[in-house]
Amino acid sequence: MPELRKDPITGRWVIIAAERAMRPSDFIRQPAVPTGGRFCPFCPGNESKTPPEVLAYRPGGGRPNEPGWTLRVVPNKFPALRVEGDLNRQGEGVYDRMNGVGAHEVVIETPDHMLTLSELSEKQVEDVFWAMRDRIVDLRRDKRLRYIIVFKNHGAAAGATLEHTHSQLIALPVVPKRAQEELDGSRRYFDYRERCIFCDILRQESDSGARVVLESEHFLAITPYASRFPFETWILPKRHSSHFEASEIPEMQNLGWIERAILRKIDKVLERPAYNLMIHSSPVQEGAMAHYHWHIEIIPKLTNAAGFEWGTGFYINPTPPEEAARFLRDVGLV
Amino acid sequence: MPELRKDPITGRWVIIAAERAMRPSDFIRQPAVPTGGRFCPFCPGNESKTPPEVLAYRPGGGRPNEPGWTLRVVPNKFPALRVEGDLNRQGEGVYDRMNGVGAHEVVIETPDHMLTLSELSEKQVEDVFWAMRDRIVDLRRDKRLRYIIVFKNHGAAAGATLEHTHSQLIALPVVPKRAQEELDGSRRYFDYRERCIFCDILRQESDSGARVVLESEHFLAITPYASRFPFETWILPKRHSSHFEASEIPEMQNLGWIERAILRKIDKVLERPAYNLMIHSSPVQEGAMAHYHWHIEIIPKLTNAAGFEWGTGFYINPTPPEEAARFLRDVGLV
Repeated sequence: MPELRKDPITGRWVIIAAERAMRPSDFIRQPAVPTGGRFCPFCPGNESKTPPEVLAYRPGGGRPNEPGWTLRVVPNKFPALRVEGDLNRQGEGVYDRMNGVGAHEVVIETPDHMLTLSELSEKQVEDVFWAMRDRIVDLRRDKRLRYIIVFKNHGAAAGATLEHTHSQLIALPVVPKRAQEELDGSRRYFDYRERCIFCDILRQESDSGARVVLESEHFLAITPYASRFPFETWILPKRHSSHFEASEIPEMQNLGWIERAILRKIDKVLERPAYNLMIHSSPVQEGAMAHYHWHIEIIPKLTNAAGFEWGTGFYINPTPPEEAARFLRDVGLV
Repeated sequence: MPELRKDPITGRWVIIAAERAMRPSDFIRQPAVPTGGRFCPFCPGNESKTPPEVLAYRPGGGRPNEPGWTLRVVPNKFPALRVEGDLNRQGEGVYDRMNGVGAHEVVIETPDHMLTLSELSEKQVEDVFWAMRDRIVDLRRDKRLRYIIVFKNHGAAAGATLEHTHSQLIALPVVPKRAQEELDGSRRYFDYRERCIFCDILRQESDSGARVVLESEHFLAITPYASRFPFETWILPKRHSSHFEASEIPEMQNLGWIERAILRKIDKVLERPAYNLMIHSSPVQEGAMAHYHWHIEIIPKLTNAAGFEWGTGFYINPTPPEEAARFLRDVGLV
């Protein structure tokens, strides 16, 4: 019998179709790996082909917008949103609109075109998180910007248009609907139980172990109970914290380690799939909140979401998360 | 300046990125057309390869599960949900689950393997809607089934696994989150203004004309103001009605005509793209509602939704709906 499971945070229902269970080999596609060969604006020597950098790590010193960096953050050349201008909210009959004020930046994670994030060193992966944190801390000084989403599209199937490994950051003048739903859902739980739903999930998952992929000093990686997608994996900080950018130094170091380990497990089990990765955090102008708990969501791109999913927000997942967790655990640290 | 637009029904924000505007030719991919050649369980003569039919149209008469049909509805051989069993709702610590009780059926739209829905006659397209209506009216007698989603995935990129043209229907024991959001959003509008938001949209779009694709006696086809995707198209009945299955005979006839015309326009402008099509309607156990208005949503599959969209429910659409509407209008009736 298929099972309907409810996500306790958003209230979203998911069908776990164990009878049509799909194993990793059912999903293997073309590996998402760089092939090189085309001109790349993210490679060293091509710094002038991007807008001027807003941040770079140059352990050996050197001048801005020249080679010598190990990580570089630049505005997106084709931004979805722009920093200039005012919001100019207005109605249009039944509709509402405002100007697309915001920021859209790219984190170039390494100078080496041929490496993927999972192939970088622990220190390099940690640096990617520091760069995201540094940019959030800078951007939130602009009080118009209310929410910052940090995400990574890896591989063309996951929406990446350039193959040189990079993450992105979009700062928005509104709190987007999905983020607001998570905030509202976790607040309702908190109002009723006076506990953080994510902290309760951490406790329950740690006790049961069935959906645990990996545990480190400061983090727990699980396949969520109501996984929307096969091999969907979340990384949750053990210490309650509403804002990613409030992470402490030992946490940031440990985050680099566990993220790299999880991506390498996914690479191994699913033969280097395309994936999307997102940091779910709290609105940047708000103070610390007891009810929300930042975390990372990783979604390997294995199936085509279809009309049913779009139309209903009701996902059919052919791989029970307990099985996905077992495959990811069994592959060991690679 | 990019523009942020708010969907008045769900509150979802969308970025209309006019400066990165994409024209139809930017989206052309492999056409989604049948190639034949592989064994097809939906072809006449192979009736025994599907579960026994629950409905068929045989204008010339004939026996069930034998050739002679023009349209056939069968249970999905690999259903996401099953009719047998009881719901058995239960908690599991912080989580909720229930058995996957429901129905999952397939409407085989024509015996001809090589045709797509847009290539069928008006009468055949109308018959597809009659079949959906007939199945809804039958299934809703099971009081456990609260919501029925009717959808079509056309082409592999849109999630179709069999190329013989077909639609699907899933009957659920819960009202899914997205449907509930639309119901709630339109109720809030109604409570405040005592008018249906969709009726107001029909009035405003008809007056402005900028986003009108096609108008028929009983329907208006538009590209919605806060389109999530390039060339997203909605077909709305002019007469207020909360339930698709309550459509009247002249409406059903006219619906076959306009749906076929819209699909042929999309085929022409975008060179036969893959697409998802959904009927958004009201929970089947509820009576007529003044605040909700059933409609069809068609989403050509042109871009890969990426981490940002998944993570936030905030869509970036590179084609302003006014431009999409113009392209679709200009191609004329084909």
